[in-house]
Amino acid sequence: MSLAEAQRLDAQDPLASCIAQFEIPQGLIYLDGNSLGPLTSGAKQRAMDVVNTQWGQDLITSWNKHQWIELPARVGAKVADIIGAAADEVICCDSTSVNLFKLLSAALKLRPNRTRIVSEKGNFPTDLYMAQGLRALLGEHIELHLVEREDILASLDNDVAVVMLTQVDFRSGHMLDIQQVSEACHQVGALTLWDLAHSAGAVPLSLSEWNVDFAVGCGYKYLNGGPGAPAFAYVAKRLQSDIQQPLSGWMGHANPFAFAVDYTPAAGINSLLCGTPAVLSMSVLDAALDVFAGLHMADIRDKSLLLSEHFLQWVDEDPACSALQLISPRAPEQRGSQLAYRHPQAYALCQALIADGVVADFRAPDILRLGLAPLYLRFSDLWRAKTVLADILTKHTYLDAKFQQRQKVT
Amino acid sequence: MSLAEAQRLDAQDPLASCIAQFEIPQGLIYLDGNSLGPLTSGAKQRAMDVVNTQWGQDLITSWNKHQWIELPARVGAKVADIIGAAADEVICCDSTSVNLFKLLSAALKLRPNRTRIVSEKGNFPTDLYMAQGLRALLGEHIELHLVEREDILASLDNDVAVVMLTQVDFRSGHMLDIQQVSEACHQVGALTLWDLAHSAGAVPLSLSEWNVDFAVGCGYKYLNGGPGAPAFAYVAKRLQSDIQQPLSGWMGHANPFAFAVDYTPAAGINSLLCGTPAVLSMSVLDAALDVFAGLHMADIRDKSLLLSEHFLQWVDEDPACSALQLISPRAPEQRGSQLAYRHPQAYALCQALIADGVVADFRAPDILRLGLAPLYLRFSDLWRAKTVLADILTKHTYLDAKFQQRQKVT
Repeated sequence: MSLAEAQRLDAQDPLASCIAQFEIPQGLIYLDGNSLGPLTSGAKQRAMDVVNTQWGQDLITSWNKHQWIELPARVGAKVADIIGAAADEVICCDSTSVNLFKLLSAALKLRPNRTRIVSEKGNFPTDLYMAQGLRALLGEHIELHLVEREDILASLDNDVAVVMLTQVDFRSGHMLDIQQVSEACHQVGALTLWDLAHSAGAVPLSLSEWNVDFAVGCGYKYLNGGPGAPAFAYVAKRLQSDIQQPLSGWMGHANPFAFAVDYTPAAGINSLLCGTPAVLSMSVLDAALDVFAGLHMADIRDKSLLLSEHFLQWVDEDPACSALQLISPRAPEQRGSQLAYRHPQAYALCQALIADGVVADFRAPDILRLGLAPLYLRFSDLWRAKTVLADILTKHTYLDAKFQQRQKVT
Repeated sequence: MSLAEAQRLDAQDPLASCIAQFEIPQGLIYLDGNSLGPLTSGAKQRAMDVVNTQWGQDLITSWNKHQWIELPARVGAKVADIIGAAADEVICCDSTSVNLFKLLSAALKLRPNRTRIVSEKGNFPTDLYMAQGLRALLGEHIELHLVEREDILASLDNDVAVVMLTQVDFRSGHMLDIQQVSEACHQVGALTLWDLAHSAGAVPLSLSEWNVDFAVGCGYKYLNGGPGAPAFAYVAKRLQSDIQQPLSGWMGHANPFAFAVDYTPAAGINSLLCGTPAVLSMSVLDAALDVFAGLHMADIRDKSLLLSEHFLQWVDEDPACSALQLISPRAPEQRGSQLAYRHPQAYALCQALIADGVVADFRAPDILRLGLAPLYLRFSDLWRAKTVLADILTKHTYLDAKFQQRQKVT
């Protein structure tokens, strides 16, 4: 009966045709697009073209001939469309961590009389580590104040220079209200720096409208840019002429090929650039983003919530799944595009799922995480995933020694 | 007569068989490997494999299955072999600019009572810009002292924290004596940070033996890693446990997948890592480096000097080339693996050469630069390049309007 329901939802799915653009292995149900998005035909084609023709045949002339030099801005503009920003407010470059460092430094510089960075204890660790690294460099007068999620608003006062948060929690999928938090920050004169790693391409964002100051995000999760794809950085137009970021490499110079001795930042978002762009990876991301052309994030969100609401219901109704403890919020408006369950054997459970063709992931110590990427996931896939999961739980397949043995990376 | 000489040299060239590994377009003479190395068959094959199989089929499981997590160290170890370092002294990550920032910060931290960075006025600009960015962040008590090349040794005193230099000048190809300069720096207690962008894969290096403290370098020039390939960082073993670098992202953590709140650096060179590695680009570089397996840098250097000595002689002897003014050193031991000539029409000359199948490059305002990469360049190629150059100069082909029109990037 529920399979029939799933198939009925598939038949009505306005995004159903998107899956044809993805090269997902036959029979695989991929619930890990929140960690590494799958290959698209366009990305595959572009990789071949950049390697064989642009690099292989046209070599150095490709900087002009194939507009390599414009890649960071071109990809940035495509991401801008997805996150509700103006085309010239986003640039593609470096890693999320490196971009966070640039913008955190820039934020502190804009608030010279304030010394406090507020963040969340449960923030993705690299964000906290980058802030710790900046603090170690600048000195202990910089304070990194880590609070619980529910204490964020209460922690705001006139000493706060910048509030650095990840919108969607990497473990639970809990989603913060960017607009509400940003408004509260601005009321005390603090700047906001949002990490959109688990948001971009998954949930509707309106960075410009919400008056967000700074943001960073990841190219290889819901944007499907490939393993280690470059990241992006957003700076609100109104701040662009005032910021100064310390990783001032030659690509961020107003005129890189003049080879001047002194750094003069480029106008606008280009001053966020540092070294030579990662042309190969960035080209692949550029092509992957074409999947989003003509789509509305609201439709993607609608399907994401339909997927998660149904999966939640199916799990709730299946007694075989009773050992799974949901740690994602029940309220749809508080969830990103993932579900997370606690289970004492989460690691082995995840391995058993993978062995049965359902790729989920594990987060220490006991979290099973399911990414629900609407562009290539069918309702019937999700029904099958639930069935496989219930079967493993019923038969205790996960107790098999081969699933218990921990591998280095998970 | 000289063509015969060139062909004789080709017949005797112990590196002649290497060219078979490169996919250089038919008939093209590529003298720009100092800017972007060409595609190898191995790199092409690997790109397809990473895209189609590792990413496309194995998806997230590739972190274990294809050892993505070990790529930075594995590629680092291959680079170490090429630059005369121990396998665990080099790591592949980020861009040259970003790595320079990490190591410059680390060097200043190791010399807390000194505030001066010494560098060369003619250093590659991004190095100077990164130092300027660090200074803007740390404050004006940090001094960036830029000197002429001939004044480097005289500028050393007890106030110097770190000397940051590029071994091979990007314009002239002038090569500094790393060992001599490093010894002089150490005598006043200063640390050394070398940029090996135009050295790695082109000239023999013995970083460990020369007691070099820090180095960075580029993956896409003589190492042929592809457009925007990731860079590398070297830290002498003896310093690794003492350094602290500010871009402390999760991949540099002792245990990234424990997701701890506090940063604890990984032991050894891994603490230089920051964000998620650029798997696709880094894999391609990994494969490209296999060309160097079994080769000796001394043999590569021998051929490089034979190439440049012959080209110099051919140009000297041809009256058609008399308007070219050599700015590279005549003394072979002072040259990297490139030659540079000044000509008032250098830009148009370079365009005319490219139109005739000889890819050189131009550096503003008037420099024609020829990279002599020994792994894929034949003596007869170089003879032909000289013939084409002489022909263009004789016929003034470069005065054609289409060669005079400047493009955005050169």
